[in-house]
Amino acid sequence: MTDLAATVHDIARQMQHCEDRGRLPDYIPALAAGDLSKFGIAVALNDGTVVTGGDSEVRFSIQSISKVFTLTLSLGLFGDAIWRRVGKEPSGSAFNSIVQLEYENGIPRNPFINAGAIAIADALLASHEPRETIGEILHFIRMVANDEEIAIDPVIARSETATGFKNFALANYLAACGNLRNAPERALGVYFHQCAITMNCVQLARAGRYLSNGGVDPVTLRPIISSARARRINALMLTCGQYDGSGEFAFRVGLPAKSGVGGGILCVVPHVGAVAVWSPGLNERGNSQLGSIALEELATRQRWSVFG
Amino acid sequence: MTDLAATVHDIARQMQHCEDRGRLPDYIPALAAGDLSKFGIAVALNDGTVVTGGDSEVRFSIQSISKVFTLTLSLGLFGDAIWRRVGKEPSGSAFNSIVQLEYENGIPRNPFINAGAIAIADALLASHEPRETIGEILHFIRMVANDEEIAIDPVIARSETATGFKNFALANYLAACGNLRNAPERALGVYFHQCAITMNCVQLARAGRYLSNGGVDPVTLRPIISSARARRINALMLTCGQYDGSGEFAFRVGLPAKSGVGGGILCVVPHVGAVAVWSPGLNERGNSQLGSIALEELATRQRWSVFG
Amino acid sequence: MTDLAATVHDIARQMQHCEDRGRLPDYIPALAAGDLSKFGIAVALNDGTVVTGGDSEVRFSIQSISKVFTLTLSLGLFGDAIWRRVGKEPSGSAFNSIVQLEYENGIPRNPFINAGAIAIADALLASHEPRETIGEILHFIRMVANDEEIAIDPVIARSETATGFKNFALANYLAACGNLRNAPERALGVYFHQCAITMNCVQLARAGRYLSNGGVDPVTLRPIISSARARRINALMLTCGQYDGSGEFAFRVGLPAKSGVGGGILCVVPHVGAVAVWSPGLNERGNSQLGSIALEELATRQRWSVFG
Amino acid sequence: MTDLAATVHDIARQMQHCEDRGRLPDYIPALAAGDLSKFGIAVALNDGTVVTGGDSEVRFSIQSISKVFTLTLSLGLFGDAIWRRVGKEPSGSAFNSIVQLEYENGIPRNPFINAGAIAIADALLASHEPRETIGEILHFIRMVANDEEIAIDPVIARSETATGFKNFALANYLAACGNLRNAPERALGVYFHQCAITMNCVQLARAGRYLSNGGVDPVTLRPIISSARARRINALMLTCGQYDGSGEFAFRVGLPAKSGVGGGILCVVPHVGAVAVWSPGLNERGNSQLGSIALEELATRQRWSVFG
Repeated sequence: MTDLAATVHDIARQMQHCEDRGRLPDYIPALAAGDLSKFGIAVALNDGTVVTGGDSEVRFSIQSISKVFTLTLSLGLFGDAIWRRVGKEPSGSAFNSIVQLEYENGIPRNPFINAGAIAIADALLASHEPRETIGEILHFIRMVANDEEIAIDPVIARSETATGFKNFALANYLAACGNLRNAPERALGVYFHQCAITMNCVQLARAGRYLSNGGVDPVTLRPIISSARARRINALMLTCGQYDGSGEFAFRVGLPAKSGVGGGILCVVPHVGAVAVWSPGLNERGNSQLGSIALEELATRQRWSVFG
Repeated sequence: MTDLAATVHDIARQMQHCEDRGRLPDYIPALAAGDLSKFGIAVALNDGTVVTGGDSEVRFSIQSISKVFTLTLSLGLFGDAIWRRVGKEPSGSAFNSIVQLEYENGIPRNPFINAGAIAIADALLASHEPRETIGEILHFIRMVANDEEIAIDPVIARSETATGFKNFALANYLAACGNLRNAPERALGVYFHQCAITMNCVQLARAGRYLSNGGVDPVTLRPIISSARARRINALMLTCGQYDGSGEFAFRVGLPAKSGVGGGILCVVPHVGAVAVWSPGLNERGNSQLGSIALEELATRQRWSVFG
Repeated sequence: MTDLAATVHDIARQMQHCEDRGRLPDYIPALAAGDLSKFGIAVALNDGTVVTGGDSEVRFSIQSISKVFTLTLSLGLFGDAIWRRVGKEPSGSAFNSIVQLEYENGIPRNPFINAGAIAIADALLASHEPRETIGEILHFIRMVANDEEIAIDPVIARSETATGFKNFALANYLAACGNLRNAPERALGVYFHQCAITMNCVQLARAGRYLSNGGVDPVTLRPIISSARARRINALMLTCGQYDGSGEFAFRVGLPAKSGVGGGILCVVPHVGAVAVWSPGLNERGNSQLGSIALEELATRQRWSVFG
Repeated sequence: MTDLAATVHDIARQMQHCEDRGRLPDYIPALAAGDLSKFGIAVALNDGTVVTGGDSEVRFSIQSISKVFTLTLSLGLFGDAIWRRVGKEPSGSAFNSIVQLEYENGIPRNPFINAGAIAIADALLASHEPRETIGEILHFIRMVANDEEIAIDPVIARSETATGFKNFALANYLAACGNLRNAPERALGVYFHQCAITMNCVQLARAGRYLSNGGVDPVTLRPIISSARARRINALMLTCGQYDGSGEFAFRVGLPAKSGVGGGILCVVPHVGAVAVWSPGLNERGNSQLGSIALEELATRQRWSVFG
């Protein structure tokens, strides 16, 4: 067993015994029923190796992690023009805050807060039908994960549509400011479905590997995005990927990462590979409680921090 | 001439011909008289090499760059207790905003906005006289720069004291919230003097090298701070070092850096060395216009981004 | 001709010659086509006299003035329980601001900002169909105006529905905070239709008279609401009736009044009667430019200010 | 005994038995030692009659009530030019909030929040010595109260100077925005002393009578200010006089009034007279708990609301 395998194994065991496992989100009914005892981890190295621990094959709703993939897609399609519609700065606010939108005239601070991701979903939608755009996103994620099994959970998509009032508020506010080209419910149709994509840690770690390898999938050698853009997505993940807990995460873990309220976190180790962790209990910032701890432990033991 | 020397030389020449050189800050009279034609750069590698270009030996007021050194000092003296008084998150606001302080009960978002640095100056002051603490800060900077010539410009210190109304407002607000142990004017006495320290690019690049080398000065081998803390200071510089332009800077340059309104920027290249640039014209976020461009160019050509 | 008639006549003539007539609101297409040359005024005294000037018989969209009537209705139906869902304080923000809602957990500051009126529309809706509630509101306004001709302009109602993104954002935000019992589009169905009621100055002045007469219509002697509640509605009109221009209006005019973006203002003179003015050009706070000036002139010449 | 005398007597007795007497302010040490059992009331009618109840002759610190008098003085000296430095709108925030100042570039929302009153103190100071201006304010208040005994409590003035960090923050912020002509500590010297003036209910009710009588003292017949300005000060008292509890107070009491954290409230009854109440326990908005209740009772029983 390699050192990495031993470390991953240790961490998975350690997480089993953690007392404080965070809280399930109560505002998306389909997620509120999660099992707090679960923890999974997968490390996909650029040499093709995949090391796993715990519930690494259990599928979960990727939620906001999908924003990394839609940002990648939109940069490929529209280039830097996308930055006219969303900013690049940390928001200093909760993930679903509408205050910043009002103060800054409908330009979301970054593509990883909900408002920013809705604006990107709207850009991807262009003049297509929501169903087509959802298909395109799913196709893209299957490609980068190299796995045709990845799918959308329709129960979760419906659950979010039925209860996503804050997201409806954000989308309508964007529309009021002229930062939405389609009807709010169409852009949200795309957004709710991208959030409802389910993946397991192995699939997710593989899907994130292009970001650690200059934009090229290290196994299929498929070029996904330019190396400059891969770098820049990593930068945004580091500064904005954990909502208003991004500073603390950079401080503790020191790696680009994006969390989702489904309890998953996708983390990029430049030049090395990608890591996915999952445990459904969230900390007070809305990021996976055990996932954050596990990544801190892994980064420390492997000396993977980008900060030296 | 090495590749690095050629790159630095190119950049210095290129900066000479830039048309848009930014604007001088008008609210500190002593800085408003700066010379927009100036540009300096120094790269101090961990092997001891120093490569320079332009006005690399002209001294300038380091201003907020001093916050990196006082944070280091305070972590050495008080350890993680300092985080009870300042946060670790990007502020999403301008460097001298008081709004965030009110909403968050007097805990500054991070140690690099003015309010955070004043709280740290107050912590360093403890029960000493301001003069002693100022001496201690200067002594520390001389040590990490390995240069006893570094000094404070008394004209600038007086100028800031006379016109620093927003800083007086911030310090008094901290006091009102119980986050200041000393009288506001005493904490500000320390703060205004640390900002008025003058250094040139060579001195500053040398002084920053411990952050790229696990907390140990790579030339004198003096241990300055633990490697974990050096990493964490780098993380804070990346997420918060350029005020509300930190996201854009991470996106473009991809390196930890701290700017000052004197026009300097100290930038850390983990495992490689430190870079100091200086040009007094500022961009709209209050960071050196040419300095930011030069660092982007340097990081791109040297492939120094931490993000791959 | 009485003094009042002379004054009203003078004011109407004076308003004809005003150069700065304000601006038409551009965000409701059906209102953007208004005729800036129009100005109407009607004073309905409690003795039954009605004095008019200018275009006092031209119908206009009452818009937010309807909030006075829905507040009256809801107080009659639900009593003080309504104050659990909306506050009584001036908002200090624009009429359609969503910031305050986020900071105060979905309780609108007062019933006269849009969010507050949407919450009241939702309360009136209870478990009825929107059509029934709209009918009830219309019936109430016809009763207080003693005029069965008053109707809803369907073109304006549709126009607001199609473009009212900020109101959709507000309603969804209320829903997200648990301060909406019905689906957002149902509450908004009521709200958009109440805003699209059209009245002329004579009808409106008559309709407001119960507020100047202890809650009893002075002509029909029909009791509309208790005198304590009539007083309290007047107080809210004075402190909150002109959005973030309420202080200035109280300062200049000194009377309770409610404005609408259709260019109307309903003004109450306690113990004396009610005044309606209309001119479609708005000042920078969103209140009728000429209407505000006319009321200041009228209150000053008649010594009607409640402040002495 | 007249009806009014009986009512005042009843209210004073009723207040003696109130259980919930509010809380003493803890941030001004000299006020924190107040006696919660106290309650005083005085009604000074324009015919010269004064009706009293409870501790109407006990002196207390008038605190923010002084802002009514300095506003009157400044309008007399500078006319409407004063409105370039302070606004006329309710703030929607706490009395010592600094947030609004930052968002509105250093123009306080109205003259009754602390920042506004500091700007007015600075205007009154002009180029005089603080001592002279304090003398002038005291002289004015003695004149309107027709009582040469009124004085400043030096212990309270010192206590506020020593602990008034938020006020120092506000004054420095005003200075930073160019809305202070004198050094912050000089403007605050005036402000802290005006707040430390002590008066009893009888003196205060007499002093406020000019506002109910068109700007002319009804007893001495001395003209204090024009009737238009008296009306406008009343309007500001109604919309802004109880900080972020102004709407609720207008709703319940329906009269212009200004409160102070010393537990006093000065209330104006247009055409009738002025009322002063005092009890040191404050409600959650910082206004006298019993004072507010007593005024509501008095206004209701005497039918004094300006709203009909």
